[in-house]
Amino acid sequence: MNPANIFAGIPDALPDELFDAIITGEQLRIERIVSRGQRAPATGWFEQAWGEWVLLLRGGARLEFENGGEVALGPGDHLFIDPGRRHRVAWTDPAQDTVWLAVHFEGGRLGENSE
Amino acid sequence: MNPANIFAGIPDALPDELFDAIITGEQLRIERIVSRGQRAPATGWFEQAWGEWVLLLRGGARLEFENGGEVALGPGDHLFIDPGRRHRVAWTDPAQDTVWLAVHFEGGRLGENSE
Repeated sequence: MNPANIFAGIPDALPDELFDAIITGEQLRIERIVSRGQRAPATGWFEQAWGEWVLLLRGGARLEFENGGEVALGPGDHLFIDPGRRHRVAWTDPAQDTVWLAVHFEGGRLGENSE
Repeated sequence: MNPANIFAGIPDALPDELFDAIITGEQLRIERIVSRGQRAPATGWFEQAWGEWVLLLRGGARLEFENGGEVALGPGDHLFIDPGRRHRVAWTDPAQDTVWLAVHFEGGRLGENSE
């Protein structure tokens, strides 16, 4: 039994963002996203029925929210995007691959953190 | 709105493994686990009703399965543990922190990978 590696299988040429499903269930989808300077078109917002938890694994990015907020993300940064909250990728680092982990799930609420 | 960082808030002293809930839902739990040389007692197996997807973010570890298989994990390695599959942490690197991401969810099946 060999594990897969989340940083493997990234093609040399990446004209578009790359989406790879890792786990797909009825109420859950875990995916890897690789960006190389891509950003959302200025006219487009993502609006999702499910909650999304995002962890940036490598690279750098900025997420923008329709209400005006913008969030810079570096390696290890994570946040939860509420269902229905309109957002888009405002920027990803053109000089390196940005690797995201996204966990999409039905509903969801922020957990207690014991820190 | 500020993101949290998955590598933040690790205490200097770590006598036991550290478990922090990041997301808790009815059918999903995302947690961070930090190990510093800890391993499971030789007599103990984990057996979980939910599926678990594990991603090793930093450090090194070995997972052991009751059927005899053992898996070495380095940064970026990930695997899915079926519901009910008995397993334990056989080893974690004593020289550095090992940071795991664990996504526990009801049911689940392996997704198609577009690679």
